[in-house]
Order: sequence, then structure tokens, then C-alpha cells
Amino acid sequence: MNYNGKKVPEVVIKRLPRYYRYLGELLSQGTTRVSSNALSEKMKVTASQIRHDFNYFGGFGQQGYGYNVEHLHNEIGTILGLKESYQTIIVGAGYLGHALATHQGFEKRGFFLKGIFDNDPEKIGKEINGHIVKSTDEMEAFVKDNKIEIAILTLSKNAVLETAEKLADYGIKGFWNFSYSELKLKKDVAVENVHLSDSLMVLGYGIKQRTDL
Amino acid sequence: MNYNGKKVPEVVIKRLPRYYRYLGELLSQGTTRVSSNALSEKMKVTASQIRHDFNYFGGFGQQGYGYNVEHLHNEIGTILGLKESYQTIIVGAGYLGHALATHQGFEKRGFFLKGIFDNDPEKIGKEINGHIVKSTDEMEAFVKDNKIEIAILTLSKNAVLETAEKLADYGIKGFWNFSYSELKLKKDVAVENVHLSDSLMVLGYGIKQRTDL
Repeated sequence: MNYNGKKVPEVVIKRLPRYYRYLGELLSQGTTRVSSNALSEKMKVTASQIRHDFNYFGGFGQQGYGYNVEHLHNEIGTILGLKESYQTIIVGAGYLGHALATHQGFEKRGFFLKGIFDNDPEKIGKEINGHIVKSTDEMEAFVKDNKIEIAILTLSKNAVLETAEKLADYGIKGFWNFSYSELKLKKDVAVENVHLSDSLMVLGYGIKQRTDL
Repeated sequence: MNYNGKKVPEVVIKRLPRYYRYLGELLSQGTTRVSSNALSEKMKVTASQIRHDFNYFGGFGQQGYGYNVEHLHNEIGTILGLKESYQTIIVGAGYLGHALATHQGFEKRGFFLKGIFDNDPEKIGKEINGHIVKSTDEMEAFVKDNKIEIAILTLSKNAVLETAEKLADYGIKGFWNFSYSELKLKKDVAVENVHLSDSLMVLGYGIKQRTDL
């Protein structure tokens, strides 16, 4: 993925949200400066890795005595696009869609939920967190009229590709895909495929290593 | 995290599930051999990174013409502990708990759901995917009697630490934490904190970079 025309490795991008979270914690504790060593310890990444990561974005002006926490938090937030606000819909009003619709943290990050869609007549018309579930037939007009940019996909694996291709045509710029499939679309849009069981497997590793000792 | 007494960086461990998934895909397509270059392209990691990662585990015997897919898939599965089976409970019978309880993929990986708990009288006694939601008062006896090893935590952020400490005392060896908090326990048990909004932030980045061009 590029940043200001420069290619930034995906692994580096994927570390930014963690930096952002940790810096947010430090900020809420009133910490104003942090050394790359202290950050390194918290992040479980080497200090040289941190400097290397930050160099992709100009280095964030570390001086001998470390980084300014607020500045760094702001800069990373800007890079991640968290200063923007995104109009969002959820497609799939099952339990997971429901859980995501009621999640408190997303609006704080600039992701505003505007509508929830499903094709199941039993779900259409029900209320979830202030939103009436709409039929997927209404999706095209809704996305276009409300300039929706992000679709959160919690529909079934076999329906997801066709739906996502349509949504990309309607103007959706980013997909957050919870359908347990690796979504690859014709259009060049942003896609994050969430694989929940990846962290479950890492957990399995952690248990096994502790048991085998 | 250690492997056979050797220290393996956490970032390497976190890549293993992705290798495992991709190899599983190759296997289901009937592919028997894969070069580190081909694997590299699919994984978006350099070929030298892949060899470097695999060297922590003995290298998996790559020959000039690549890796044996089935062998590599098996080996990584063994390292991740996917040949074991884990007795699992869910604590928190809200929408997310519900979504996870009905997820098809976990048993395939060896994670068997044995019980669901909540402290809300309105939820206790209800059925979720064949499990009657039990009171958290019954948790201690249940965990001990059924040798439960993993607790999936989908309860609220302010209740999670106290509950997890108790569960660790009852014998739980690993926590999969969805409570949007960084869980750190007194006992040395495995913890995977799931931060869903991390991937949402990466999505924000992907959209922003495409828009800024």
C-alpha cells in the first residue's frame, strides 16, 4: 500500500493501529513523551523496528529524548484516515451484524453507521440500535443517495462476492469483510478480510507451548 | 513465544495461521508443491521472509523445487496445536457470543464449544445452538468437571478482568478476549486480545490512500 506515492509494506500498515491504540493509552494516562525503547517494550517490537516503521512516514521527528506522544498519536491518526468520517452500512443483520451495529468504538474512530440491510423478510423491518433493517433491494438507491463509503459484510460466504461486486458498482470504496472468505474484487477498492480464527490459532499455539514445557 | 525452547518472535507466530490458511487452499485445489516465490506472492511477504520464518521451526525441508504442500500444512498445523482438541466455553451470551457460538469453522480447528454462560437472568435458560445458557454461578464447577481449557470472553469491558482472573484460578489455560480491553492476568496463561477496530483502521488507510491519489 502506498503512502504519498511511496510503497509501504502491508505489515507496517497493519502495525499502525496498535501504535495508535498504545499512544492513546499513554495520552489518557497523561504521558507526554515516550522513548522508542519504552514504546518497543509495550509493543513487543524492537526499537529499531519502530524507527524503521516510522521512517516510511518521515520519522515523526524523534529527538534524543523520545517522541511527543500527542503529536505521534495525531500523525498516525491522520495517516490512518481517522480524521475523516466515513458513512457506513452493514449488510447482514444476523448476530454478528447486530453485535457490530451496537459496538460503541466505531463512531469514535469516525465510522458512522447509516443503515443495516438484509434479504431475510423476517429481519427486514426489525430495529437494531435505532436503525430499521432495510431490504437489500433498497441498497443501491441508499448507497448512492447517502454517499455511503464503507460496507461491513456479515452475510454468508456464498452470497458475499456477488453482493460486494454490486456494492462496488454503487460506489462503495471499502469493504470490511466478516464472511470468512478472501474477497477479491474486480474494482480497485479497499478490502479488509477479517479472519477471526487466525487469532484463535495463535491462542492454540500459546496454550500448546505452555503445556509442552 | 517459545518453540521447543527457542524464542520465536510474536510477529512470526501471528503469520502462521495465514500460511496455514493459504496452504489449506492450495491443498483443496489439488496443488502438491509450492515454491517460496509462489507462496510469497500469495502471502504478500518476501520469499526470504518466508524462509526466515520457517527456519525457526527447522525450515520444513524445502528442496530446490519448493515445499510439499501437504507436509507443510501438517507441520504448521501441528505447531499451532491444531491437532489437539480444546474444550471451550463462551462467557457472555450477547450478540457477539451468539455469533461465535454459531460459527462453523471453530470445531474444524479443534475448538469444541461445551457451554455458554451469562449473569443476566433474561439470558440464562435460553438456547443457543443446542446449548442452554447457564448462570456464571455454575462456571467454577463446570470448568473443573469438564476440564475446560479455553474461555471466549464476550462480556463487558468492566467485568472482564475479574471474571478472567477467576477462570484462570479454575484452570482455564487460554483466553480469547473480545471485550475491547488489553487483558493482562496474574497467572501465566495464553491470552489473545481481539481488537476488531484495528482492521477497520487499516481499511480507513486503504480508502484514504486511494482517494488522495
